Amino acid sequence: MTYEEAILARIANVLESRKPDAGADPKQSYVASLFVKGQDAILKKVGEEATELVMASKDGIPDRIVSETADLWFHCMIALAHHGLRPEDVLAELARREGISGHQEKASRSTQGDSSNE
Amino acid sequence: MTYEEAILARIANVLESRKPDAGADPKQSYVASLFVKGQDAILKKVGEEATELVMASKDGIPDRIVSETADLWFHCMIALAHHGLRPEDVLAELARREGISGHQEKASRSTQGDSSNE
Amino acid sequence: MTYEEAILARIANVLESRKPDAGADPKQSYVASLFVKGQDAILKKVGEEATELVMASKDGIPDRIVSETADLWFHCMIALAHHGLRPEDVLAELARREGISGHQEKASRSTQGDSSNE
Amino acid sequence: MTYEEAILARIANVLESRKPDAGADPKQSYVASLFVKGQDAILKKVGEEATELVMASKDGIPDRIVSETADLWFHCMIALAHHGLRPEDVLAELARREGISGHQEKASRSTQGDSSNE
Repeated sequence: MTYEEAILARIANVLESRKPDAGADPKQSYVASLFVKGQDAILKKVGEEATELVMASKDGIPDRIVSETADLWFHCMIALAHHGLRPEDVLAELARREGISGHQEKASRSTQGDSSNE
Repeated sequence: MTYEEAILARIANVLESRKPDAGADPKQSYVASLFVKGQDAILKKVGEEATELVMASKDGIPDRIVSETADLWFHCMIALAHHGLRPEDVLAELARREGISGHQEKASRSTQGDSSNE
Repeated sequence: MTYEEAILARIANVLESRKPDAGADPKQSYVASLFVKGQDAILKKVGEEATELVMASKDGIPDRIVSETADLWFHCMIALAHHGLRPEDVLAELARREGISGHQEKASRSTQGDSSNE
Repeated sequence: MTYEEAILARIANVLESRKPDAGADPKQSYVASLFVKGQDAILKKVGEEATELVMASKDGIPDRIVSETADLWFHCMIALAHHGLRPEDVLAELARREGISGHQEKASRSTQGDSSNE
């Protein structure tokens, strides 16, 4: 397991440590302040960062596209943590769809949509 | 490297194979059809899936939250692929911020924001 | 009252007539089909149309900006109708803020934000 | 013309007076500060307010739904103003579609979509 591959799990661990229950100080940590503000504050950031990714993509500047995607995924992980979920759950779901797509490609295509990674 | 950890890289490879240049048929593949429709069609889906994640999170149903996050990240990867970028670039950016946050925590906190994972 | 000024109220009346309770056929009317699908389908369109407005604005094409704003406001009115609310309620709220902004400008500015039209 | 019906035009006039060219002070006015920050700052607010409307609608609290719709429409009008456009243009587009829908209902339905108010 390389440093980068495990980054999502590491970030999820850091997020857990930023929860009020874990004793994090909202004045010291941006993430802790979001957890204290609650779900709507977290989801507002998800909507905002998605909009920023759309704008960066329209501008076509690679560094900003990567940076805004990182912002969006980071805030998605905060939303997951709010619900006691982890990025590994998302990766497992993507892997499950990939498995469907890889092994049962024809079958999944009969119901073309975005529920499998085709 | 486990199956799950490498899933983002594997999906990125599949996305590359779905590009028109790679000979993919938009009638056979949802992803190929998005590439053919172009950037606005891809970004419209990013906005739509972000909204669906917000709604799933408000409903508080774990399976749907995971599924909608998977949908959102999947379409983000299509947007990245449109620009010749990969999820590994996003993971590297997240790792870079994590490194900043881990090693230079005090310094990064002086400019509290969302550019580091704190 | 001119034709254009009353357009929002007229559209709201049409939307009411498209509700299943009013006997509208979802196979005949796009709006009726959205009401039948329910709130999430309506809100998904709000998120999608907001993204399309952002893209049209980035492209800077006046006709598309106007058209996408019309799409967005139209779907907002469907969301309002879903809750038994009307565009007149939104206009009244905007007028209330305008009144605050116009008559008590200094006071409202002490709490600068977006809750008044300044 | 009643006070409420003309509110969109009145707000558009106020927005014009808040442009830097009109001598508005970004330190005194929220709208002026948005104009100075530029289009991306305005569109980021459109995305954010759309997300807040979605959340308010999911919560089903009428006052918040009206208030968030007002916020969203207000920021849409700032985006319009940025491009030299006005809410009257949006009303005219909605009226045009309403006309199509009213007078040529059958014809427009053959291409069912959201480009006419049906």
